[in-house]
Amino acid sequence: MRLFEPLAINGMTMPNRVLVPAMVTRLSGEDGYVNQDVIDRYVRYAVGGVGLIVVEATAVHSTKSGPLLRLSEDRFIDGHARLVRAVRAVSDSKIVPQIIHFTKVARSGWRQTIEMLDAGDINRVIEDFGLAAGRARAAGYDGVELHSAHAYTLSSFLSRLNKRRDEYTGRTLEGRLRLLGKVMRRVRLAVGENFPVGVRFLSEEAIKNGYALPEAKLMARRMAQLGVDYLSLSVGGKFEDAIHRTGQPLYPYTGYSGDKCMPGDWYPALPHADHAATVKHYLNGKGFDVPVVSVGKISTPQEAERLLVEGKADIIGMARQLLTDPDWLRKLEQGRDDDIVLCIYCNVCKQLDENFKKVTCFLWPKGALQAPADETNAERPAWPTEGAGLEALVGDGQITLSWRRPAGGSVSGYDIYRAEDDGTATCVEAVKSTKYADRLVLGGLRYMYYVRAFDHSGRASPPSNLAHVAMPMPDFAGTTETTVPRQL
Amino acid sequence: MRLFEPLAINGMTMPNRVLVPAMVTRLSGEDGYVNQDVIDRYVRYAVGGVGLIVVEATAVHSTKSGPLLRLSEDRFIDGHARLVRAVRAVSDSKIVPQIIHFTKVARSGWRQTIEMLDAGDINRVIEDFGLAAGRARAAGYDGVELHSAHAYTLSSFLSRLNKRRDEYTGRTLEGRLRLLGKVMRRVRLAVGENFPVGVRFLSEEAIKNGYALPEAKLMARRMAQLGVDYLSLSVGGKFEDAIHRTGQPLYPYTGYSGDKCMPGDWYPALPHADHAATVKHYLNGKGFDVPVVSVGKISTPQEAERLLVEGKADIIGMARQLLTDPDWLRKLEQGRDDDIVLCIYCNVCKQLDENFKKVTCFLWPKGALQAPADETNAERPAWPTEGAGLEALVGDGQITLSWRRPAGGSVSGYDIYRAEDDGTATCVEAVKSTKYADRLVLGGLRYMYYVRAFDHSGRASPPSNLAHVAMPMPDFAGTTETTVPRQL
Repeated sequence: MRLFEPLAINGMTMPNRVLVPAMVTRLSGEDGYVNQDVIDRYVRYAVGGVGLIVVEATAVHSTKSGPLLRLSEDRFIDGHARLVRAVRAVSDSKIVPQIIHFTKVARSGWRQTIEMLDAGDINRVIEDFGLAAGRARAAGYDGVELHSAHAYTLSSFLSRLNKRRDEYTGRTLEGRLRLLGKVMRRVRLAVGENFPVGVRFLSEEAIKNGYALPEAKLMARRMAQLGVDYLSLSVGGKFEDAIHRTGQPLYPYTGYSGDKCMPGDWYPALPHADHAATVKHYLNGKGFDVPVVSVGKISTPQEAERLLVEGKADIIGMARQLLTDPDWLRKLEQGRDDDIVLCIYCNVCKQLDENFKKVTCFLWPKGALQAPADETNAERPAWPTEGAGLEALVGDGQITLSWRRPAGGSVSGYDIYRAEDDGTATCVEAVKSTKYADRLVLGGLRYMYYVRAFDHSGRASPPSNLAHVAMPMPDFAGTTETTVPRQL
Repeated sequence: MRLFEPLAINGMTMPNRVLVPAMVTRLSGEDGYVNQDVIDRYVRYAVGGVGLIVVEATAVHSTKSGPLLRLSEDRFIDGHARLVRAVRAVSDSKIVPQIIHFTKVARSGWRQTIEMLDAGDINRVIEDFGLAAGRARAAGYDGVELHSAHAYTLSSFLSRLNKRRDEYTGRTLEGRLRLLGKVMRRVRLAVGENFPVGVRFLSEEAIKNGYALPEAKLMARRMAQLGVDYLSLSVGGKFEDAIHRTGQPLYPYTGYSGDKCMPGDWYPALPHADHAATVKHYLNGKGFDVPVVSVGKISTPQEAERLLVEGKADIIGMARQLLTDPDWLRKLEQGRDDDIVLCIYCNVCKQLDENFKKVTCFLWPKGALQAPADETNAERPAWPTEGAGLEALVGDGQITLSWRRPAGGSVSGYDIYRAEDDGTATCVEAVKSTKYADRLVLGGLRYMYYVRAFDHSGRASPPSNLAHVAMPMPDFAGTTETTVPRQL
């Protein structure tokens, strides 16, 4: 499989094509230091054998914020060095920090915009990026990623909503790209040529008047011109449509652009895969081979492999899916695809983040701070001798399923499989209790369901009995037609 | 070409595959009657030979609003009958009205939501749709289209944000689909089986928590089950993210979902074509052959034809492009593709609409209320004997073009053609004066430009001289690096 092909990026060799994009964990304290919980989180991905771990956004400066890692002073280097050593000790996964500059936000809803920054402030941003990148190298990281996406400083300069009118003017693409150019130059000065520097940026802002793919392609080309070593795409996550909650600082994933950044279960699979494909195709056509990371609701090995085979991506980024199951790649390698716990995009992780709580996965054992260990010697869940007893009832425009608990093994949750008409059954949801109401069913169709119990390692029971059910076509007769002439 | 293949829709035969989607004109008075300006607008499309004209949203009820056509009472039928006769007199284009129900909006920003409607109100909605559809048939229209898109009543019931908890509950798909089912049943009762009834609805709401393609596919299937005769897709255009302007009623195309509904020039071509393709593929796979209309920044005959050939659409909907040039199809038929005036998606039409002004096109002659007649016997624009004198200057991150006025012919505007590197030149903009600043150019690239003047019929001059220009790569050297150690 192409997923297992190594990839050399400016001297750093990813052992495979799977990348963990930067994800807020809220595991660090406000002091900005790496702590054991943070180390445990990233070591867990390393145990799973991913190719490249991008550590959560790490501030290049000292502006106050909630829990957030820092590389804003030399005193933070040691903690990062410990993290790097812990990852190296368990796998050949590569690891880079995502370094970020953000402007100020207040609990009142006020936020500092980039138009408020003077020349000195901007020079400080450039300088801080350079110094933080240097510290990343000093800590032993394999490279560094510049955060130029979402609601943060570099992205705000790239934005079509940049209202500056100086050398960073929002009126020209070159003006918008200027800060990134200066930052990249300064970072290179700090880390040298032979150190991978990636950039994460938006293929689409997903806000009113925000930029879209045609400009993102040109931005990608500029990054390639600047010698950026990999490009990681994202979408949305902006302040402009964020919803202010009283007493909380504005948080940029609370609006529609936040939905697009982390598309929920009601979105199709791979909603943004064409963005990476378009950017990659454009760059390759212009003679650049800088690797492009595709992201957005990529869950299954088949989906991921197809993107690589079809030339739509060089690297597969999975955030929520790898949070759910950091052993994704190792299970695939061991021929245990069936044991992969699939993310259901319920976005409990996103809600935890929005509420400034430690980010965990709904599908982990209750109370767990990290993904459970992959224990293959435990007893696999098994239905009781009388069977799973799956029943499906129709009523009130929904189908309600219920079933028995397994008799053996420890149970982490249940996957719900559904087939429409005589089609193939696919997993449509995972739940933790022994019932489920399917509210997205259509009258006039036949549905077939089965359920599988799975344990903390994703090892599943056999399918339950099949439950077949016909949704009746609703009756639309009303009370009004009797008073009306049959035809005008 | 597939574009010229007729299509039979429940007894109505479209002479070709081109459809004018419903577009606000603001040409009618607040009295709701069809007037001569309205007739002229639609006759203009008929002269151009389009297959199906969908008349702008026409209210089924009497709720107060700005300028808006009505079919809410029998007294409105005559005006519509005159419109139908006027269209029939000039072409075999088919014509249907789009009938709409909307809830109340106030200048204070207050709006009535569907949760405020009681059972009697809802029965009245159903009844009003039936009666208005009957009036449409009585007026001689070829069919009728139900407006179930954007911010209006039927769409609000379909929405994932529907907060009702009765038989129309937003908690189940069936609850959300219930009103449409009842309306469709009532409309059939009014117009009979042998009268085309189309539905326009959203493939994606493009608002926070709004629905996306997976649910749109099931909605489309319900419409097919109900015997809807064609499906016309749109995106966004919702109240939820609309921007309230003091003293104006809330207008649903002012937010990001309005951007998605009418994507501007910074969006790629055909941004939503995959939506229609996905819906059509799903329906066809389930044995339904209801025609699907694709829309969204479709401009050129090549793009339109490709969608048909590749099975991604049955009908091509073009709103802004046909507003710009209603002769699009006839010019194509006459082998005059080069005379088509291409929409530049400047959205001046959208701004006029948002400001409650009569909707015209920026590329029409100044002050014109309708697209100019196609006059092929006038003198074609020609450059002066000394040439067009196109010059390109680089500075401030942009390329500034200037050129001479043509010596002969009347000039409506100028198409700007640009090639990047050694690529193919494409038309990137149209302007009305003899200068243009290109602000989306990237340093390090070579650009080639030429300009063509066109008259009101789109007949263009030969290309001007070519202007070649190299954008220098910007210098990112700053003042900061001297104070910094070369490497940490």
